[in-house]
This record gives sequence, C-alpha cells and structure tokens, in this order.
Amino acid sequence: MFKKLAVIGCGLIGGSFALALKKAKLVDHVIGFSSTQATLMRAKAGGVIDEMSTSLEQTVRGADLVLVAIPVQSIGQCFKEIREFIDPGALLMDVGSTKQDVEAYAVAFLGDKLSQFVPSHPIAGKEKSGVDHASADLFRNRSLILTPLAQTKPALVETARLIWSTIGSRVHLMSSCDHDNAFAAVSHLPHLIAFAFMNGLIDQPNHEQLLSVAGPGFRDFSRIAASDPVVWRDIFFSNKENLKKQARLFCASLQTLEQLIEEENSDALIKIIELSRSSRSNWHID
Amino acid sequence: MFKKLAVIGCGLIGGSFALALKKAKLVDHVIGFSSTQATLMRAKAGGVIDEMSTSLEQTVRGADLVLVAIPVQSIGQCFKEIREFIDPGALLMDVGSTKQDVEAYAVAFLGDKLSQFVPSHPIAGKEKSGVDHASADLFRNRSLILTPLAQTKPALVETARLIWSTIGSRVHLMSSCDHDNAFAAVSHLPHLIAFAFMNGLIDQPNHEQLLSVAGPGFRDFSRIAASDPVVWRDIFFSNKENLKKQARLFCASLQTLEQLIEEENSDALIKIIELSRSSRSNWHID
Repeated sequence: MFKKLAVIGCGLIGGSFALALKKAKLVDHVIGFSSTQATLMRAKAGGVIDEMSTSLEQTVRGADLVLVAIPVQSIGQCFKEIREFIDPGALLMDVGSTKQDVEAYAVAFLGDKLSQFVPSHPIAGKEKSGVDHASADLFRNRSLILTPLAQTKPALVETARLIWSTIGSRVHLMSSCDHDNAFAAVSHLPHLIAFAFMNGLIDQPNHEQLLSVAGPGFRDFSRIAASDPVVWRDIFFSNKENLKKQARLFCASLQTLEQLIEEENSDALIKIIELSRSSRSNWHID
Repeated sequence: MFKKLAVIGCGLIGGSFALALKKAKLVDHVIGFSSTQATLMRAKAGGVIDEMSTSLEQTVRGADLVLVAIPVQSIGQCFKEIREFIDPGALLMDVGSTKQDVEAYAVAFLGDKLSQFVPSHPIAGKEKSGVDHASADLFRNRSLILTPLAQTKPALVETARLIWSTIGSRVHLMSSCDHDNAFAAVSHLPHLIAFAFMNGLIDQPNHEQLLSVAGPGFRDFSRIAASDPVVWRDIFFSNKENLKKQARLFCASLQTLEQLIEEENSDALIKIIELSRSSRSNWHID
C-alpha cells in the first residue's frame, strides 16, 4: 500500500495507472502533475487524481511512488528537475516505449536516485488518447516490460513487478537493449511498413477506386497506419539503429519472396508461406 | 427465383452461396458437385445442397444458375467440360479472386456460352475453410465485384447484381484489369508483405523473445500472415505483374520514410505519417 502516488503527466497511461491502483486499493492519495490546467481539471473531475499540481516539487515531495508518464523526449528534463525531491525510499517508474534512451537519461540525470528507478513499458494503448479515455482496466491481460539497470535495487524491481501484476499485467524482464531490439521487430517495423504502405497507396491517382474494394484483410493490416505522427516520429528517431536493422531483414525477406514469384518457384514459395502461416497461427497474445 | 442452382465446388464460398440463396428463397433446388464424396455427404447432411453429384454434366444440365466455386487454376478445365451442357438461358458465375485469368479462360473455352458468363468476386472469407463453416450470412455487408466482359449480356449482369445484393452484398462493377490492379494494391501486396515480415522475424535466432512482447498492433498487422499457402501461391502467380508494380511503389515509399528517419527530418516525416493517419482514418469498410 502506497501513501502517495505522484503521476507526472495525466494522459491515457498515467490516468489509467492511477485508476488501476485506486481500484486495487494500492494507494491512498494520488497527486497529478500537468502543465495544462484543463487536463488537471478533467483528471480531478473524473476521479483520476485527488490533488492537482503544477509544481514538480510539490508533486514529488513525500511520494512513495512516482510515475513519469510523459513523452520520452521530455523525460531527461523531468528527471533533472525532480531528482532532488525524490524521497530516498520512493519507487520511480516511467512508461516510455523505448528504453535505451530513457536509461541514458536516468544515468545522466538521476544521480544518487538512480538505484530507485525501474524503467517500465506497458504494452497497452487505445486509438484515443487523453485522460478522458483512462480506464482502470487498461493494463489488464497486457504485457508489461521492466528493464532494470544494473544499479537498480532488486527489492524495488520486485515491488514494481508486484504493482503491475496486481493490476492485471503480465510482467516480463529484459535488458533495455533486448527491449528496443524486440520492439523494433514486432512494433516499430510494422508501423513503419504500414505508414509506407498507406502512402504508396494514396500516391496513386486512382486511390479512391483501390480503397473502395478493400476488405477485412486491409482493415486489420493497415489499422496501425492511423497512429499518431508525433509519437511515432519520436519512436523512429529514438530507436533508429534497431529499426534500420529490422527493415533490412524485412526487405531481404521480401526480395526473396518476389524472386520466387518471378521464377514461379512453387515449392519454395509454398514452403515460405507455410512457415509464415504456422508461426503466426502458433503465436498467442497475452 | 431460380429452379435449379448448380454449385460446382462445395467449399466455404460455394456452400455459403447455396445457403444464402435458400435463406432468401431465391432457389428451389440445389445440386452440388464435388470430386470428393465426403465433401458432398457433409454438404448434404448440413442442408447446404439437396442433391449430390459427381458428374459435371448431371450438375449443369437444366440449371438456370451455375456457380463455379473452385480454385482459379481449375476453372479453365471446368469451363471446357461444362460448356456444352450449360442451358442457353442460364446465368454462369465464378467466385475467383483474380479476374483477368478467369476472363481469359472464359474467352478460350466458353464459346457460344460466353455471353452468359458474369465473373464475380465476393470479398468474403473466414480463417477456416470448407463446407462445414459455410454460412448464409457470409456475404452480408461485404463487397462483391462483378467484372462483366464486353460480350456479357447486360440483362444477366443485372440478374447477377440483384442476386448478390439480395443476399446482402454491396455490388461494384469494374473491368477485370481494374479489378486485378486494385486487389494487387489492397489485398495481394499486404499479404506478400505480411508473409515477408513473418519470415524476416522467424529467421532471427531470438524470435521467441521477439514474439513474446508482441501486442495488439502486431496481432492485427500480421493476421493475414496465417493465410493459406496454396491459395496465395496461385494468386501471386496469377496476378504477378500488378503485384510487382505495387511492390515497387511500396518499396519506394518505404525508402523515402527510411531516408527521412536517417536524416531526422522531423517535418517531412510527420507530414507523411499524418497523410497515412488521415487517409486510413477516413477509410470505412462496407
């Protein structure tokens, strides 16, 4: 049980975390920080937070649990500003989608509080963002990755694991390096491909006719092509090297398939599609 | 109202068409042809067909509606065998996923019955195939493309349109050339990409770790990677030139995005992703 949860950034993820901890009776009091007064008002009115704050010092002081739920590129500055106010016993977490950059910010700016930081990445989201869409069940039956540093206190890693599993997440541990490589492969590359696919389509003069016959396969394949531009620019820039590596592997694989089609090499093509079919069929989401 | 519907090929599509016409009271009697006795028995037992047949002549003779629902590469041979038995007043349709090749078979083998042929492509399917999964509602709220030839009798095109719209489909008309180009863009290329993506992933030694963190985005994007190898080999071979063209456009678009990420060209990248986001958001499935 935590006395005071400080949520820095009252968006969909920060708000849902607050609601989930309240629902699980893991927290007494929630203070929310936002630089936007309207967001704070909506978070307070919706029962997401108990106290509004526009001061990082006031938010973090006395909190035994601090969640930084802001865009990754703002996390470094935030760490710099909150370091001195973090309680020596507090657990500090973030929710960024990339972890090597967050780890670098932590090493650079958290100083003597570095051992209290457990980097986290909940694999949850909605098509709609903002605190109005926050839900206590957002993390239920979803994966949650912790990427503790060598310096992180093991007891705090266990506490973090307990919190996330109590609110329904399936917790995985890996290094920030493995994390960023894995997400380049299964999330960032699919988004890059989906954006490229939609642009390749829209650039064709008869794209309205093309789209008029698109069916359920197109619907599912291209759903992520509607994702947020700023979020994805940040992820692409931040995980550039892993993404480039995954894109190279994909393009090589695509070229192989195109070659087999060109040659009408039936056996080899069926073998490759069958491998795709069976591995995708055997995959199950958490 | 049709007196006798002949369904050649009692699979998911042929079976669902028979059930849909029965439900809409559009047909009196359904005869089903299959080369597999077990399929016929299941179709009869499931109430999909009223009469089993292993003779194409017996199936087609006296039918006022003939549906050829077999793999595209077998349609030519089928046309050759049934041509002389087709009633001069009958409407003949197929359900192939590619239409230029079916049109070529029709021109080559239907002779004096060519004007009775209305090529059709229902955009419907299920993850599971076979007559056991047939459903009277399979075509409801789905697109259906008709690609009549210059030689097709206009009255039969209208009859075909009426049948499919009565069982719930939204009917589009286009040329076989436009059809194949459009499907290369919105269906065949996404399948090719999804197969290449899954193979690129599975080829990596740590693919189990990669797949363990995959989430809802991966699930939807890669769903079609589990599609049937034989069906897709046939489609890829049959629509090769259109597919190559679409793959070239996609690769150029992917290279542009990769270049912008490499250069960290924020404004141009956001503009492209925003175009993808808005065009995908504005698309609505039938």
